[in-house]
Amino acid sequence: MTATLYVCTTCRAGEVLEEDAPRPGALLHAALSAADAPDDVEVVGVSCLSACSQGAAVALSEPGKWTYVYGRMTPADAPDILAGAAAYAASTDGLVPWRERPVQFRKQSLARVPPFQMPLEAAE
Amino acid sequence: MTATLYVCTTCRAGEVLEEDAPRPGALLHAALSAADAPDDVEVVGVSCLSACSQGAAVALSEPGKWTYVYGRMTPADAPDILAGAAAYAASTDGLVPWRERPVQFRKQSLARVPPFQMPLEAAE
Repeated sequence: MTATLYVCTTCRAGEVLEEDAPRPGALLHAALSAADAPDDVEVVGVSCLSACSQGAAVALSEPGKWTYVYGRMTPADAPDILAGAAAYAASTDGLVPWRERPVQFRKQSLARVPPFQMPLEAAE
Repeated sequence: MTATLYVCTTCRAGEVLEEDAPRPGALLHAALSAADAPDDVEVVGVSCLSACSQGAAVALSEPGKWTYVYGRMTPADAPDILAGAAAYAASTDGLVPWRERPVQFRKQSLARVPPFQMPLEAAE
């Protein structure tokens, strides 16, 4: 399986921008696309992750795993994001031990959502 | 299919609470569980949706649909949340037209994540 790293390409990250100015989300997407993605991670641009006030935002998902969303990301965070994505892809359920998470993933979580197949007792 | 409405039961919603005080997330879960859920919506408590600074949080997910996460919810929002969950369950892809979304869903989005099966051109 391959983990998908979604990157919001339209995010203004709360900034007031000229109409033709590059958006922070597009700059983040460019930085992540230009870097060497881990083999088992696919970087996919999405036109809106609806995290507008907390962007730029990325999300990690893979069937059978918890989905994670992170906000307040900048192009400088690209190495951390890709390292975190690699750890996520290597995990069995999306739950990466705290100490193995990049600092930005520890600090900038916006949300996580359980996988569809989660046994209900594991959610409580 | 049934949509799942996840409710973070441990959320403190940014409040400083006594150790044994009921948590805002637990109160929200109780309000949602006490109400009549739509037939095609299952309310499931989760111990953490990692939206701690923007809680109380709920998430809507269903295979093949976009996943949505909403924050800053209170027990008073339970009717809006359940109405929004019903509209989500009735949709084919999780994308409910803006005017049909409850006001709180329009205002309090934390994030959304594409479904696994999304054609890549639809994400751009």
